[in-house]
Amino acid sequence: MASFSDEKYHPGLSVDCVIFGFNSNVLKVLLLKLKGTDTWALPGGFVKSSENVDDAAIRVLRERTGLEDIFLRQFQLFGSLERHDRAHTEKMIEKGIINKADIPWFNQRFVTLGYYALVEYSKVNEPTADYISEFCQWYPIDEVPELMLDHSQILARAYEELKEQVSNHPVGLNLMPAQFTMPELQSLYETILGKSLDRRNFQRKMLSYGILRKTGKRQNGKAHKAPWLYEFDEENYASALQADNYRGI
Amino acid sequence: MASFSDEKYHPGLSVDCVIFGFNSNVLKVLLLKLKGTDTWALPGGFVKSSENVDDAAIRVLRERTGLEDIFLRQFQLFGSLERHDRAHTEKMIEKGIINKADIPWFNQRFVTLGYYALVEYSKVNEPTADYISEFCQWYPIDEVPELMLDHSQILARAYEELKEQVSNHPVGLNLMPAQFTMPELQSLYETILGKSLDRRNFQRKMLSYGILRKTGKRQNGKAHKAPWLYEFDEENYASALQADNYRGI
Repeated sequence: MASFSDEKYHPGLSVDCVIFGFNSNVLKVLLLKLKGTDTWALPGGFVKSSENVDDAAIRVLRERTGLEDIFLRQFQLFGSLERHDRAHTEKMIEKGIINKADIPWFNQRFVTLGYYALVEYSKVNEPTADYISEFCQWYPIDEVPELMLDHSQILARAYEELKEQVSNHPVGLNLMPAQFTMPELQSLYETILGKSLDRRNFQRKMLSYGILRKTGKRQNGKAHKAPWLYEFDEENYASALQADNYRGI
Repeated sequence: MASFSDEKYHPGLSVDCVIFGFNSNVLKVLLLKLKGTDTWALPGGFVKSSENVDDAAIRVLRERTGLEDIFLRQFQLFGSLERHDRAHTEKMIEKGIINKADIPWFNQRFVTLGYYALVEYSKVNEPTADYISEFCQWYPIDEVPELMLDHSQILARAYEELKEQVSNHPVGLNLMPAQFTMPELQSLYETILGKSLDRRNFQRKMLSYGILRKTGKRQNGKAHKAPWLYEFDEENYASALQADNYRGI
C-alpha cells in the first residue's frame, strides 16, 4: 500500500475521472468497488509533486484502462467545504483500506479536479482496480449505484459536459470502433442525448462537416442491403473540434 | 500586509480571474500593476481554509470591482510544473511586495484555478488594487501588456472560452447596460468574435431565442429614426443558458 506525505504529493488536491464507454447501444461508466465495502467510487488519485496535474489524470486513466492518447478533458474543480467527510476516512481506516500512518493525509481537506474521458469500450481488455479497491467494472449510466463522497455529483456534471460536447462539437472518435455505420454513429448520439434524432437530418449534417470518410465497404462484407462503413477523417475531425462555427447535431 | 500559513489558506492553490468588460465597442480586461515593478497580473488570490473555492473567486471579484451576483465561471485549472517560478517570488521579495515570513508560502508549487467574469463596465466605479499591487486598470484586450507567470496563457484561454460561450449560449446580460439597441448588442458579439455579422441575420436569430424584450422606447428618446431599445428577459435568458438546443449566433 502506498504511503502519502506532503513531500511526494501535492497537498489537498486529487483528480477524479469519469470514464465513458459505449457498447451495445449503452453508455457506460467505469467504477471501482472499495475493498470490503459496498461503496463505489470514480477512478481517481493524487497528483505527484513532480507531475503536471493533467498528467496525473492521464496516469489514472492508463492505470485503470491500459489506454493512452484518448480524449480526456478536465471540466470542473469541485472545491466546496461540504465534500470533506471525516466519517468517510474513518470507515476507510476501519476497513483497513488505508494505513494509519496516512490518516493525516486523508483527513486533509481535498479539492478534486474532475476529468471526463471517452474510450473505445472494446479496447479496454480488463479494467484494473487500484490499491483501495477490490475490482473495477463498467456500469450502464442508468444503473450507477450511489457513489462515495460527491462522486455522484461529479458524474452528473460530467454527463452534462458530454451532452454539451455532443451538441456543439464532433464526438465519436474515441467512442466508436475504427469503422462504423451511420446508424451506429446515430445511436451513439441518441444515447448521449437521450432522445431520438431524425435519420436523414442526422446523416445530412454529419456528412456536411467533412469529418467522415466513406470506406467503400459495407458492414460484415454483406451485399448491397447492408449499411456503408465510415471512418473518421482525423485531420478534419481535429479542426472541427476547434471550430467555433460547428453547429453540432 | 496579510500573512499566510497552511492553517488559514488551502495549500498550493490559488484562483485567478479574467474580468471582461465592454465599453465603447471595445472588449477590456481588468489588470493589476504590481508595486514598484512594470509587471502586470490578473486579479487573483488564495482560498481560505474555511471557504468554498468558488467563493474565493467571488470574493476576489468583489474586492476588485465592488460587484456581486455577476456571471463568473471557472474554466480551467492550470497545473503544469512549469508555472512554478522561484525567480518571480524572489523579485517580489526584493521589491518588498511580500513579507519575508511568507517566503515559504510563496515558494510552494501552486496550481491556479482560472475563472472568467463578464461585468457591466459602467457599474465598476473604481477598480481597487490589492495589497501586492499599486493600481488596477482596464486594458483593451488587444493592448494587454506581458503578464506575470502564465497569466498571458490564462487570459488567452479565457478569451477562447468567451468565444465558445458566445457561439453556443446567450451572452450580454452582464456586459450590456439594462437597455440597449440591437446594433449595440451586435457590436458586442462582433467584438468578442472578432468578425462582422450580417445585421438582418443577427436580429432574426436574437429575436428567435425569446431572450429579448422590446421596451417600446427608442434610444435617447429620439423620434422614429432612432433604433429601438431592448432589454433581456432574464427568465428566458436563464433557460437559454441551460438549453442544449441553443444554436448561438
